[in-house]
Amino acid sequence: MEIEKYQIAEYNDPVLNAHQKAFAYIASTVPNAEAIIEKLRAFQVAIPSWALGTGGTRFARFAGGGEPRNLEEKIMDIGLLHALNRSSGAISLHIPWDIPSNPANIRALAAQYGLSFDAMNSNTFQDQPGQPLSYKYGSLQHTDSATRQQAIDHNIEVINYGIELGSTSLTVWLADGSCFPGQLNFRKAFQNTLSGLQEIYKALPENWKMFVEYKAFEPNFYSTTVGDWGQSLLYANKLGEKAYTLVDLGHHLPNANIEQIVSLLLMEGKLGGFHFNDSKYGDDDLTVGSIKPYQLFLIFNELIDGMDARGMEHTTDLGWMIDASHNVKDPLEDLLQSVEAIMLAYAQALLVDRRQLAEAQKLNDVVRAQEILQQAYRTDVRPLVAEARLRDGGALMPLCIFRSSEVRKNLIRERGSVSVATGL
Amino acid sequence: MEIEKYQIAEYNDPVLNAHQKAFAYIASTVPNAEAIIEKLRAFQVAIPSWALGTGGTRFARFAGGGEPRNLEEKIMDIGLLHALNRSSGAISLHIPWDIPSNPANIRALAAQYGLSFDAMNSNTFQDQPGQPLSYKYGSLQHTDSATRQQAIDHNIEVINYGIELGSTSLTVWLADGSCFPGQLNFRKAFQNTLSGLQEIYKALPENWKMFVEYKAFEPNFYSTTVGDWGQSLLYANKLGEKAYTLVDLGHHLPNANIEQIVSLLLMEGKLGGFHFNDSKYGDDDLTVGSIKPYQLFLIFNELIDGMDARGMEHTTDLGWMIDASHNVKDPLEDLLQSVEAIMLAYAQALLVDRRQLAEAQKLNDVVRAQEILQQAYRTDVRPLVAEARLRDGGALMPLCIFRSSEVRKNLIRERGSVSVATGL
Amino acid sequence: MEIEKYQIAEYNDPVLNAHQKAFAYIASTVPNAEAIIEKLRAFQVAIPSWALGTGGTRFARFAGGGEPRNLEEKIMDIGLLHALNRSSGAISLHIPWDIPSNPANIRALAAQYGLSFDAMNSNTFQDQPGQPLSYKYGSLQHTDSATRQQAIDHNIEVINYGIELGSTSLTVWLADGSCFPGQLNFRKAFQNTLSGLQEIYKALPENWKMFVEYKAFEPNFYSTTVGDWGQSLLYANKLGEKAYTLVDLGHHLPNANIEQIVSLLLMEGKLGGFHFNDSKYGDDDLTVGSIKPYQLFLIFNELIDGMDARGMEHTTDLGWMIDASHNVKDPLEDLLQSVEAIMLAYAQALLVDRRQLAEAQKLNDVVRAQEILQQAYRTDVRPLVAEARLRDGGALMPLCIFRSSEVRKNLIRERGSVSVATGL
Amino acid sequence: MEIEKYQIAEYNDPVLNAHQKAFAYIASTVPNAEAIIEKLRAFQVAIPSWALGTGGTRFARFAGGGEPRNLEEKIMDIGLLHALNRSSGAISLHIPWDIPSNPANIRALAAQYGLSFDAMNSNTFQDQPGQPLSYKYGSLQHTDSATRQQAIDHNIEVINYGIELGSTSLTVWLADGSCFPGQLNFRKAFQNTLSGLQEIYKALPENWKMFVEYKAFEPNFYSTTVGDWGQSLLYANKLGEKAYTLVDLGHHLPNANIEQIVSLLLMEGKLGGFHFNDSKYGDDDLTVGSIKPYQLFLIFNELIDGMDARGMEHTTDLGWMIDASHNVKDPLEDLLQSVEAIMLAYAQALLVDRRQLAEAQKLNDVVRAQEILQQAYRTDVRPLVAEARLRDGGALMPLCIFRSSEVRKNLIRERGSVSVATGL
Repeated sequence: MEIEKYQIAEYNDPVLNAHQKAFAYIASTVPNAEAIIEKLRAFQVAIPSWALGTGGTRFARFAGGGEPRNLEEKIMDIGLLHALNRSSGAISLHIPWDIPSNPANIRALAAQYGLSFDAMNSNTFQDQPGQPLSYKYGSLQHTDSATRQQAIDHNIEVINYGIELGSTSLTVWLADGSCFPGQLNFRKAFQNTLSGLQEIYKALPENWKMFVEYKAFEPNFYSTTVGDWGQSLLYANKLGEKAYTLVDLGHHLPNANIEQIVSLLLMEGKLGGFHFNDSKYGDDDLTVGSIKPYQLFLIFNELIDGMDARGMEHTTDLGWMIDASHNVKDPLEDLLQSVEAIMLAYAQALLVDRRQLAEAQKLNDVVRAQEILQQAYRTDVRPLVAEARLRDGGALMPLCIFRSSEVRKNLIRERGSVSVATGL
Repeated sequence: MEIEKYQIAEYNDPVLNAHQKAFAYIASTVPNAEAIIEKLRAFQVAIPSWALGTGGTRFARFAGGGEPRNLEEKIMDIGLLHALNRSSGAISLHIPWDIPSNPANIRALAAQYGLSFDAMNSNTFQDQPGQPLSYKYGSLQHTDSATRQQAIDHNIEVINYGIELGSTSLTVWLADGSCFPGQLNFRKAFQNTLSGLQEIYKALPENWKMFVEYKAFEPNFYSTTVGDWGQSLLYANKLGEKAYTLVDLGHHLPNANIEQIVSLLLMEGKLGGFHFNDSKYGDDDLTVGSIKPYQLFLIFNELIDGMDARGMEHTTDLGWMIDASHNVKDPLEDLLQSVEAIMLAYAQALLVDRRQLAEAQKLNDVVRAQEILQQAYRTDVRPLVAEARLRDGGALMPLCIFRSSEVRKNLIRERGSVSVATGL
Repeated sequence: MEIEKYQIAEYNDPVLNAHQKAFAYIASTVPNAEAIIEKLRAFQVAIPSWALGTGGTRFARFAGGGEPRNLEEKIMDIGLLHALNRSSGAISLHIPWDIPSNPANIRALAAQYGLSFDAMNSNTFQDQPGQPLSYKYGSLQHTDSATRQQAIDHNIEVINYGIELGSTSLTVWLADGSCFPGQLNFRKAFQNTLSGLQEIYKALPENWKMFVEYKAFEPNFYSTTVGDWGQSLLYANKLGEKAYTLVDLGHHLPNANIEQIVSLLLMEGKLGGFHFNDSKYGDDDLTVGSIKPYQLFLIFNELIDGMDARGMEHTTDLGWMIDASHNVKDPLEDLLQSVEAIMLAYAQALLVDRRQLAEAQKLNDVVRAQEILQQAYRTDVRPLVAEARLRDGGALMPLCIFRSSEVRKNLIRERGSVSVATGL
Repeated sequence: MEIEKYQIAEYNDPVLNAHQKAFAYIASTVPNAEAIIEKLRAFQVAIPSWALGTGGTRFARFAGGGEPRNLEEKIMDIGLLHALNRSSGAISLHIPWDIPSNPANIRALAAQYGLSFDAMNSNTFQDQPGQPLSYKYGSLQHTDSATRQQAIDHNIEVINYGIELGSTSLTVWLADGSCFPGQLNFRKAFQNTLSGLQEIYKALPENWKMFVEYKAFEPNFYSTTVGDWGQSLLYANKLGEKAYTLVDLGHHLPNANIEQIVSLLLMEGKLGGFHFNDSKYGDDDLTVGSIKPYQLFLIFNELIDGMDARGMEHTTDLGWMIDASHNVKDPLEDLLQSVEAIMLAYAQALLVDRRQLAEAQKLNDVVRAQEILQQAYRTDVRPLVAEARLRDGGALMPLCIFRSSEVRKNLIRERGSVSVATGL
């Protein structure tokens, strides 16, 4: 199932006038519409390979149909998304769920859809069939050195797959931790994990980065061995300059001020990547922007401010990825909603008058500082984001095309109604 | 310090063209602009008398200047706000901080500014000078019946003041509870409190309502005796048809789904009033809409849906009040920001296409339901709210006028730089 | 695998002297040792059939060996626990995981081990093979009446199984709720759920109870349709006198005061049952007493106080059940630890001097009230609990026997190392 | 008001027999009673000077009587506590609440009671009368360099007072932060704060330590500038080897695993001090051990394990201090309860069989690891703590003597019933 450029143009046609009117209006009211559009066009969010199928809750998975049955079909799905929104031009793979049997072919297929390979993800939180040693009691933290070595070897294998595909980063997320007080010696678990990460770090090619992802808790846990940004930063600093912290929005204790964490990590030069999703209670992996869109805006506000202060490139100097689960929505529709929410927050943050904000901050003019942020946030920037898509041949209304052209129906026809995406 | 209508018109003049352009644009894109404007014009939020001065944190109060020194000046301040935004046409008094020595005069003064008297608030969480019995261990929950009676008598006194001023409701917020396990017999505390509320209920005039406010916790507490909506509803049901639950946004445990609470209370016919503010961690009493504006929208979405389903009048059938604290902002500026945020959320909620939403819900079309809500929320409704103000002689940009006309400077000149609002 | 009484006696023998010394000491220091022991002996906690196998986290299940392969083996496992601790004399079944093909035989088998059948549990949170309609969008709350009817019918079927087994209560836990704002009309979801519960209620035999379990959130949720005790109580009150609220320790928002909830539900005559477990972050289903043992004590303190005040029988007038998950422990060992923690908390709560506590509360003597609770909690009541077991033929040290007699090794030999308990 | 040694002995007399029996029992059941007693005797907890009077909630302070009116009386009060429990042999002063007009005399007075001077505390969270510049918008983070300098100067002044009194550490707790998004540039606030701390650090004498205290939130806040252990550690590492992190139990987000934080800070050699209290919801500053005693034990378990691993002295290599507020209890009674709870948790942690625990951890024997911790925690160690007091001439039952000898009544007679402790 593909959607051709001409088809998109056909779908855009009837709504083009309304869009042009809306765009003209917004362009006349904001000072920097063209500059924002250029930044929006350049901005790309990676889609994780595991987000293309229906996810599950603790108890059940209510599968939809037409899920991609292999890596090739996953790439096609992301190609479809990218054709529609022109902002999903990267894929983040997970090993062993997505082992490329023929990397060169896979790379060529992705290139065909304009997709590059973002961070590679390893998996030491599940036991694979035939795996000699179990991760029941952790992987890199394990008290048994052979189990640790197995986890190290796996990560190096993931790097090697990544090299073949043209990826340049490895995300290490560990489900290591404990369920009960007393189970772990926290310091030994940290030291074991650090040693393991150091071994993996040694295997990184020169131009690669390692992202150390943290997470406050999992259901049924008492502690996690990379639990918060402070711990992740400790690891990253001890590892070296290629190691960075990765922030996932859902991996915090209740009420955490994530935008401040982002700002401080940028200050330290140690923010490496970002996982977008949204949450109401825990790590809910809901559609980006569906619960706390203002928080998302505030985070982008800090990202832009902090990256600009260091002369970082928005597009390349951080890894941007969605990490969500889709249990009651069509996964592709959910991803379209998520990317849209990200682009809107990015556009709003680009609207913030930073000179005036700095001045208000200097004068402790709290009311004005709030007004400046809200002025940007309350602006309806949807026409800017749509215009950016349009200029790149994308859809004005991606979700509408997705539905009108009956993508899911076609996918089910092609792949069947009971396909299950690998890894789910 | 007053701002005359002609002055407001003069301030509006230079921005009128821009507003008209913006309003024309939004009016052309939403289906029901005029209907929304009429609802916005009718909607009034009460300002609590204690919100007009600088608040404090646990440790310090960093006072601003020009605070109202008495009830008359508080009314003038609210009159000023109302002149600017035309949406602050009510005042909520607190006894004993605002005892009207001459109620008839006070009532006439308020009427001059177009203000009515919203819910009266009693105070049994502080000991007043000369008060015979202490509330150290609670008021209506107290194990000593004489202390309970003193608290009952005080509430009846508050009702009597309210009658003279033309108020028709009493808000009972208790700081009753305990600091340590074992301190209270929970059931006896509940029964004592219920008995006290029943005595107060008996003193309510026919057309009055009693609002039972709940709160999950206070600093230094272990339990509160009206702790959540479930407890408040128990009291309200046992009291009778004039008793209702009052919801304050900041009075919940972390992550509570307040919009669902609101919906269920409306279903039960027992939602009576609302206290607006915003929070990051606890009961922070921050400016409305400054932290979680989407939550505010979702709450309004439920309020409108639930009130319409019962045929309730938005303007009169619930008590709407701000309850915030202003520690680092000019209180009047903060209130202007708060009212603006409320009006925007109300306007956005009025934009929701309820017929389509019901249809999407019926079909379990989760993606579309989300799109419908976001379509309304992402719309820039500021011109609608400004237009509503304009039609009532208010300011297009209330905060700008407040600053340009140097209101605070004038208030400081009139009242001094070290005035302290009564009750703070 | 069974352990005979004479074997238990043999295991007890070498530690009997030490126990007698310890028991003599504690018996000489508390005023009511014999009365407590009698209550401990009468107290029985039901084991849920799904807790006998290894549970899983979101990502993986690291199975142990020797898990019960059918209902008969589950009963044997609980029989073994009960033989050791004499406090696990009941089983709580889950349909369809434990459908008894021959109820009379099952009942006889359970009787052989001294086990009765506690609350029956229905399942409308998973789709079973061949099930006509899906619960993807909820069960009793569903917008489609046929799906609701299917869920009603299933619950009635569960009641019928229960009747055959001699159970007298049904626990209804629903995973109904929503993942996103807008997905549900909260009021309609409530009304649909209520209607469904009413249909099920009608099918209850005269002497049965229905327990309406609430839960604040699940991973990936935005709302739950029976979300807190307030909602559960609304349902229970509307249903009738056979309907009660069931409290699960892990089903609350952060920091909730569960002991107060318990107290108020008892005050209203609507507390029906209890699910024991422990948690650090969310609904972690950890071993009872492993994280917050003082909270467990405070809850028992309220249970005893509230039940005594209503003349309720501790042993029969509430349903007591463990609801935990065992991911890194041997499930049977975990259950032994859980039951021990429950018995200790119960014993400590029985030690509280209620006359003195009431007096301290009356006088607002907060320090003394705390001392009274801590005096009970700090007492080492393990010898009392061990003595209660001993008098009933149980083990002084159940966990030691379990290990020394190599129960797990034997179970693996009997059942294999890759057995998977039904339902997991 | 003082209690002489002979009086304490007289009070001990009637309960001595019972104690000896209890002590003999526990001494016969634990392997290392004498070693534990020696450690308990050496362990001293500092009492903060502000904890000797009645605290307040957000709304009211319900004062008790007989509060110390000056520094001399505060020292006497702590002397009294120390005479009773022999474990409160240090005082932690707060400037400007406790400026010693004659340091030599104050030092001599303290010595008379066997008290040393623990960490000095500065105050830049309140404006003092006559202070030139306000801390309304922060102190060390302030955008105005003169305000920052004022805060620096104040801290240096505090060091100087401390030198004269024989203290060797400075605790810096800042209420710096922001109330609203946009108010602060997080990175500039961090850099300003760091610069200020660096200036203060320069003024530290050779043998001094600086403790950088963190806190997640205050009521009415949106961010804090030293918000968590990660931030505090960043500051401490940038400052140098005399700078350490200080952990206050109440200063965390909900559900934080504080024992893990403690362990990692010890691993990094950067844990400097500890503030004891307890909490149910936020920073409640309740009596130590009154809400989560098992958490307190787990923290001590990590402290001992981590300190022993580094060869640190329990008694001297960390600063131990109570930081609580007393609103409904007699402050001195509350402090006696707090110190008792600390000593019990310390004793229980000393009971943990570390060799066996390490072995269980090595083998991933989670059940056994939990048993080992619970074995220690469930032991009634009160006779050990009492014995330690007894051997140092303290009271077997400090609270009983306090009440029997009518200390508070005497203090009220001496100081009046309306005295207010300085700083409250």
